[in-house]
Amino acid sequence: MAGARIPTAQSRVRPVIEAVRPQVDGGRFPAKAAVGDVVTVEADAFVDGHDLVACEVRHRHVTEHRWVSLTMVPIGNDRWRGAFRVSDVGRHRFTVHAWIDRFGTWRRDLKARMDAGQDASADLLVGADLLRRSARRARGEDRRSLTAMAHQLAQAEPGPAGPLVALIFGDELAELARRYPDRAAAATSGELSLVVDPERARFSTWYELFPRSASPDPDRHGTLADAEARLPYLTQLGIDVLYLPPIHPIGSTSRKGDDGAPVAGPGEPGSPWAIGAPEGGHTAVHPQLGSLDDLDHLVAAAATRGIDVALDLAFQCSPDHPWVHEHPEWFRHRPDGSIGYAENPPKRYEDIYPLDFETEAWRDLWDALLGVVEFWIAHGITVFRVDNPHTKPLGFWEWLIASVKRAHPETIFLAEAFTRPKVMYRLAKAGFSQSYTYFTWRQTRWELETYLHELTATEVADYFRPNFWPNTPDILTEQLQSGGASIFAIRLVLAATLAASYGIYGPAFELQDHLPRHPGSEEYLHSEKYALRHWDLERRGSLAAVVGRINRIRRSHPALQFNDSLRFHGSENEQLMVYSKSRPTGETVADGTSGWDRDTVVVVVNLDPYHPQSGWIDLDLGALGIEADRPFALHDLLTDERYRWEGPRNFVILDPQVVPAHIFHLRPPTPDRLDRPVSTKGSR
Amino acid sequence: MAGARIPTAQSRVRPVIEAVRPQVDGGRFPAKAAVGDVVTVEADAFVDGHDLVACEVRHRHVTEHRWVSLTMVPIGNDRWRGAFRVSDVGRHRFTVHAWIDRFGTWRRDLKARMDAGQDASADLLVGADLLRRSARRARGEDRRSLTAMAHQLAQAEPGPAGPLVALIFGDELAELARRYPDRAAAATSGELSLVVDPERARFSTWYELFPRSASPDPDRHGTLADAEARLPYLTQLGIDVLYLPPIHPIGSTSRKGDDGAPVAGPGEPGSPWAIGAPEGGHTAVHPQLGSLDDLDHLVAAAATRGIDVALDLAFQCSPDHPWVHEHPEWFRHRPDGSIGYAENPPKRYEDIYPLDFETEAWRDLWDALLGVVEFWIAHGITVFRVDNPHTKPLGFWEWLIASVKRAHPETIFLAEAFTRPKVMYRLAKAGFSQSYTYFTWRQTRWELETYLHELTATEVADYFRPNFWPNTPDILTEQLQSGGASIFAIRLVLAATLAASYGIYGPAFELQDHLPRHPGSEEYLHSEKYALRHWDLERRGSLAAVVGRINRIRRSHPALQFNDSLRFHGSENEQLMVYSKSRPTGETVADGTSGWDRDTVVVVVNLDPYHPQSGWIDLDLGALGIEADRPFALHDLLTDERYRWEGPRNFVILDPQVVPAHIFHLRPPTPDRLDRPVSTKGSR
Repeated sequence: MAGARIPTAQSRVRPVIEAVRPQVDGGRFPAKAAVGDVVTVEADAFVDGHDLVACEVRHRHVTEHRWVSLTMVPIGNDRWRGAFRVSDVGRHRFTVHAWIDRFGTWRRDLKARMDAGQDASADLLVGADLLRRSARRARGEDRRSLTAMAHQLAQAEPGPAGPLVALIFGDELAELARRYPDRAAAATSGELSLVVDPERARFSTWYELFPRSASPDPDRHGTLADAEARLPYLTQLGIDVLYLPPIHPIGSTSRKGDDGAPVAGPGEPGSPWAIGAPEGGHTAVHPQLGSLDDLDHLVAAAATRGIDVALDLAFQCSPDHPWVHEHPEWFRHRPDGSIGYAENPPKRYEDIYPLDFETEAWRDLWDALLGVVEFWIAHGITVFRVDNPHTKPLGFWEWLIASVKRAHPETIFLAEAFTRPKVMYRLAKAGFSQSYTYFTWRQTRWELETYLHELTATEVADYFRPNFWPNTPDILTEQLQSGGASIFAIRLVLAATLAASYGIYGPAFELQDHLPRHPGSEEYLHSEKYALRHWDLERRGSLAAVVGRINRIRRSHPALQFNDSLRFHGSENEQLMVYSKSRPTGETVADGTSGWDRDTVVVVVNLDPYHPQSGWIDLDLGALGIEADRPFALHDLLTDERYRWEGPRNFVILDPQVVPAHIFHLRPPTPDRLDRPVSTKGSR
Repeated sequence: MAGARIPTAQSRVRPVIEAVRPQVDGGRFPAKAAVGDVVTVEADAFVDGHDLVACEVRHRHVTEHRWVSLTMVPIGNDRWRGAFRVSDVGRHRFTVHAWIDRFGTWRRDLKARMDAGQDASADLLVGADLLRRSARRARGEDRRSLTAMAHQLAQAEPGPAGPLVALIFGDELAELARRYPDRAAAATSGELSLVVDPERARFSTWYELFPRSASPDPDRHGTLADAEARLPYLTQLGIDVLYLPPIHPIGSTSRKGDDGAPVAGPGEPGSPWAIGAPEGGHTAVHPQLGSLDDLDHLVAAAATRGIDVALDLAFQCSPDHPWVHEHPEWFRHRPDGSIGYAENPPKRYEDIYPLDFETEAWRDLWDALLGVVEFWIAHGITVFRVDNPHTKPLGFWEWLIASVKRAHPETIFLAEAFTRPKVMYRLAKAGFSQSYTYFTWRQTRWELETYLHELTATEVADYFRPNFWPNTPDILTEQLQSGGASIFAIRLVLAATLAASYGIYGPAFELQDHLPRHPGSEEYLHSEKYALRHWDLERRGSLAAVVGRINRIRRSHPALQFNDSLRFHGSENEQLMVYSKSRPTGETVADGTSGWDRDTVVVVVNLDPYHPQSGWIDLDLGALGIEADRPFALHDLLTDERYRWEGPRNFVILDPQVVPAHIFHLRPPTPDRLDRPVSTKGSR
């Protein structure tokens, strides 16, 4: 008890640091960044009394020994901000440091006294002492300068004269003194982590394709070579990640038939997610798709076009998977000794055995699964779409992804989890680089704005990277079933401009496949999950050209490659959704640019696929850095039409049968160009 | 690197616990509670896949060895809640535990299979196995029951018959199984802390009084005995904390005169905050106030009335304080060797020497200051108002308050910090039981609602207890200077009903002293800080009776003794502010009571001191647990008038020259009572 009275040295540290951002669950998980990103660090830093504090952020890549220090600047209410660019994949660490700015405090107080006409002679001696202490921390020329300046202050007559005032309040001394502060009692935040991913983790355009349906001959099973032949088409579409559902041998036991029928008929191919057959398991290629060499060839050919091939990690087995016999202990057995198939009672998946992640042999199983990932990495795969990660332990993913990224920090994992929000967020914290979202079912303006706010403007944005999919092989929404071509275009524009990463399941998407298995079902009729399909890419009405155009817009406009600047604007018509994204152009690290130094895109979408919608929209020009009383030019990147607006309120009409959206690039008006009048009314 | 591949046992724990509340800065600081409070703990808890989880909170007073476990209940979106009552002052700890509810999961799946008509015979064997495992964890009768039930399940014929179904889905088995879960792989949150204060830390009514101005004889210096003679008056006012500005000897060097004049005239008493004279320092009593015995007598007399005497901790010295000579090393010296007086340039406080908390002898100084607190605790003082805590290191307060409360957990510290918000909040985190606030300057409805939301409906409420003061000896707001008696009544009602703790500086408050030192100043003319004043408590127009009435209302209505149920309601007139507080009556721990099982108070205040204001107000009846289509009764506790309303919209008119507010107690209507009509219009 007596001992507890004695304060520790830590009690004596006066500055306080709080609320450092980015910070995920108090530092339990790393925040996310991508190569080239400017990471903005903020913290509250303050001290008792009237002293000024100074603040810096230090950061380093884990492979570097030296910390790089950056001055933070106050942004009001005791909050400080600093920013640095990250240029290498892997873990990055940062800390915030705060100390008392004794020279700055002294100078501020001296000025206040002089302004009030008070005697400041004692202050000069105090200042001299401060500079002498700084000199002791300095070296070389700086040391000599500080010593000389300290001498000047100490020798000054009472009432500092002109030259001395110039010295004290000049930039040179301030800069020198700032360089050698007294950090003896500096406060430091705990070390926080960032995981720096490749740029593609932040900005990517996905396309899901079943190779077995890629044959140009409707009567032939498609191959990896057929998928490779699609690459020029995908390039036209502007795709950069080609995701293939599982390419492994498919079990024959309890194989599902067309439309998920419990028993497959002769020749039916089964579900690619029923992985494993005598030919092999998770590291084998389905014989009808080709060979491992064919995959290598596809991966290499895609790479020359800047396309990554993403494989599916579906950690489950068909009853015919080699592991069933080699490692029965990796599966859960029923009381009768048989292995239980996958169930979510009363639903049954008889063609699939789940792995038992809780088996006593869990370390062996987990290691084998890590081995699967490493096998494909050795074949040039760096992007993985993970099937149903929420049905495997969260601790497993945290371990697996960390283990992979330690040696291969360039790897990207997309979580295909459609489950409860907190589970989805935890998967992202545990390491997934991107995540499927509820976007697919968010359809009204209110739903979209609320959800996007949560994803982009709360702490969720620090660790969860949304990847928006209008459709997947599992999800043909009721909206897509009934809205005609317009709804496909609407959902495409929303996905591609609301989220920096999005994907489509094609060719079903661009060919607007919209027939459900039965009314009320979100399953596709004759789903590719259970059957081969033949797609006529040349079909009239294909949205391929629109997809290509939108993806070219995404590539040319940095604004659309990030989510953090997303802002919604007003519209009197609930069917018209208006939002903007903007990004500083050039190499500036500080994020303080505004107006025409930024790439700014404004999107107006008619959410109603059936009717033209019109109304007045209200742009928050202040947020866009645009003067309210000066006209500005808009270039519609979808239609190439040009407009000239002035002020926040403008009239818009959009006919979904023609083009359901504007994607405007905002520019300062050029006087010599023949711009359109203020309203777009009648322009369609 | 190879080693890093091997997952730790911790990876295998499947349940996840996140976002435990209350939790201050990730557990760095304790949250606050008061004796008798029901502490509600919430956490996110979930697991991968479809398994159910079970969740409990464990808690104990630090002096207890045994944890008390309480089942938490799910409240939606994977969030769980549990509540317990704390009954002893001191530190309390709690943790959250979550595990997989294997029996509940099994039962749910079995039911789904049976409902779908599937064969469930294997499930019975699985269930039998689960119960056998539970039996191994049980003892005595429970063990025998579980074993017997396991046997029954194992022996059952396929297709469970009636009695077996009743057994499986009955409450008895569920309760038994729940009692002995498999916690081998339970997740546990970190241990979090609560500091449990006396009830008065949460609910208190303060009165600041200068004893030297308490003499009934205008020509005589007041004494502690005079202050004691005021106790009956304070009892009438309903006060429970009597706060005395420093009662110590006052320095004569650089003593301030009337209205803060730089030089005191002969006989002027000086500022009580210029502490210390040859007669003594922080542990001495000013000779003109009386003796230490007089203080003891006052404290004892106050205690018999349930009033705590609060002393002022102003850790600074006059130039005549004994420490200046005994411990010159505790002060900061100028280059010329003299001690610097307090300054906030260009402001100077020549009668005060600040203590140098950064002195090399800091441990001695801090220990001496702790000794001051312990000295007064030995004299029966348990409530301290701390002067300008924000000008002393935050680490000092954290250490001092923790040191005091270790031996004296009943102690209450009120932080008199009017400074930047984050510094005020950090002081509260560091240990202050209550805090002065910006209430004094929050005057419009929007300002008040926004500020109250921050204080009562964000994480701030976990650690910061507001104490609302309409006036202090330092602050006579412009509003109080000009609004007449009405504004004093308005600010009184607001302080007393918005905050569970509030205080007034009297008799200046109830006598509506409103003359500033000069126009534009918030200082009182002839402030008691520098001069003796004489107050005529019998003066016509004193608000003493109103203060007493409002404090009696506060004592009779638990709703007003807490802040967490504060809710604002609508009003078309911005000058009419409407809010409610409610509290379950009776001993229930669960906070789920509603409607007439709760003590509900609705307050309507006319914020305009000059004009009657009227308008329709909109009560959120759903939030109040009142059916919208049934009439309800309102008893105005200020005027004793009774009304009968129906539905959310009602008309109110309030004349500030008569009574500027309604304080309604809501009751179910009694048919036999002659209630007023729906509108209060014309009732004044």
